[in-house]
Amino acid sequence: MFYPEPLAKLIDAFSRLPGIGPKTAARHAFHVLRMKEEDCIEFAKALVNVKRNLHYCSICCNITDTDPCRICQDKGRDHSIICVVQEPKDLVAMERTREYNGFYHVLHGAISPMEGIGPDELRIADLLKRLGDEQVQELILATNPNIEGEATAMYLSRLVRSFGLKVTRIAHGLPVGGDLEYADEVTLTKSLEGRREI
Amino acid sequence: MFYPEPLAKLIDAFSRLPGIGPKTAARHAFHVLRMKEEDCIEFAKALVNVKRNLHYCSICCNITDTDPCRICQDKGRDHSIICVVQEPKDLVAMERTREYNGFYHVLHGAISPMEGIGPDELRIADLLKRLGDEQVQELILATNPNIEGEATAMYLSRLVRSFGLKVTRIAHGLPVGGDLEYADEVTLTKSLEGRREI
Repeated sequence: MFYPEPLAKLIDAFSRLPGIGPKTAARHAFHVLRMKEEDCIEFAKALVNVKRNLHYCSICCNITDTDPCRICQDKGRDHSIICVVQEPKDLVAMERTREYNGFYHVLHGAISPMEGIGPDELRIADLLKRLGDEQVQELILATNPNIEGEATAMYLSRLVRSFGLKVTRIAHGLPVGGDLEYADEVTLTKSLEGRREI
Repeated sequence: MFYPEPLAKLIDAFSRLPGIGPKTAARHAFHVLRMKEEDCIEFAKALVNVKRNLHYCSICCNITDTDPCRICQDKGRDHSIICVVQEPKDLVAMERTREYNGFYHVLHGAISPMEGIGPDELRIADLLKRLGDEQVQELILATNPNIEGEATAMYLSRLVRSFGLKVTRIAHGLPVGGDLEYADEVTLTKSLEGRREI
């Protein structure tokens, strides 16, 4: 123990964050030492408020400080589409496109037998409840394009078959600005399979 | 603004830390969301306590929660040596060697005309006060081996000449485990200049 206790505690707290080792944690703690006291108190308040004032939206399961969340409350959105994403971050990524005007459903994970996550650990029951609404006509499966995401999309597409909805999966292909030369075989195959007339 | 306000505030707070961009800040904030509430409150307390309970040691200017700091209070240490370092982190690095048993003095910076830091911005007056004590016989200058650190060491060595102390500078040379082939010329020259009989 070379650091005084309050500093050691803060370094320990920082080093629990993902991807932060002891050296970076110490750097952050020394940065905090040089911060203005009011900024530091703001930071501490932000930490506590995130836990106290945020919860899951009772409709779409997104993280929100209101219930229903702002998106579910938005009357200007298209009630016929629900886009299923794994995490709140993915919802934010979709919103950034400014191209999508429907609603969302956040699963909070993907099926992963390796990590012991089955369908029951995800917010699938809440999704099925929403599909009973006649307004919903299309379900977009926007889980990640990896094994877990694909498995989840496959599972969901079979599960909701009885609702008679249009179920779609976001396209696989080359990223914009990418390079054919450096694309991996699987992406290139998917890109070829998904070709469209222009 | 796609994130609910409490979350956006926390992301903003994280992104002010050194080397943390908006993506990493969001990752940290989502990590906090998944933390237990008591851990989160501990984190917040650690932040505030660091500002409230830490100050500079009235003797060596190190960061401490007691005054004098634990090192200055330590009666088992050698009163004849003071090691001058730039930052509290450097003191910790020295302590980690477990080879040094004297006292320290933390300058809180180095002379850097580029950043407008002159001798008056450093804790040099406090150091001179300590050198009046007859017990002190050696001053080790352990500022960083870069331009600012060297300039500071040079400045200090001239400044304290009148005290009639032994003034030493930590050795330059090849790092242990290093490779002659990849050493830069300056380091190798210094390493050659500093050669010792074995």
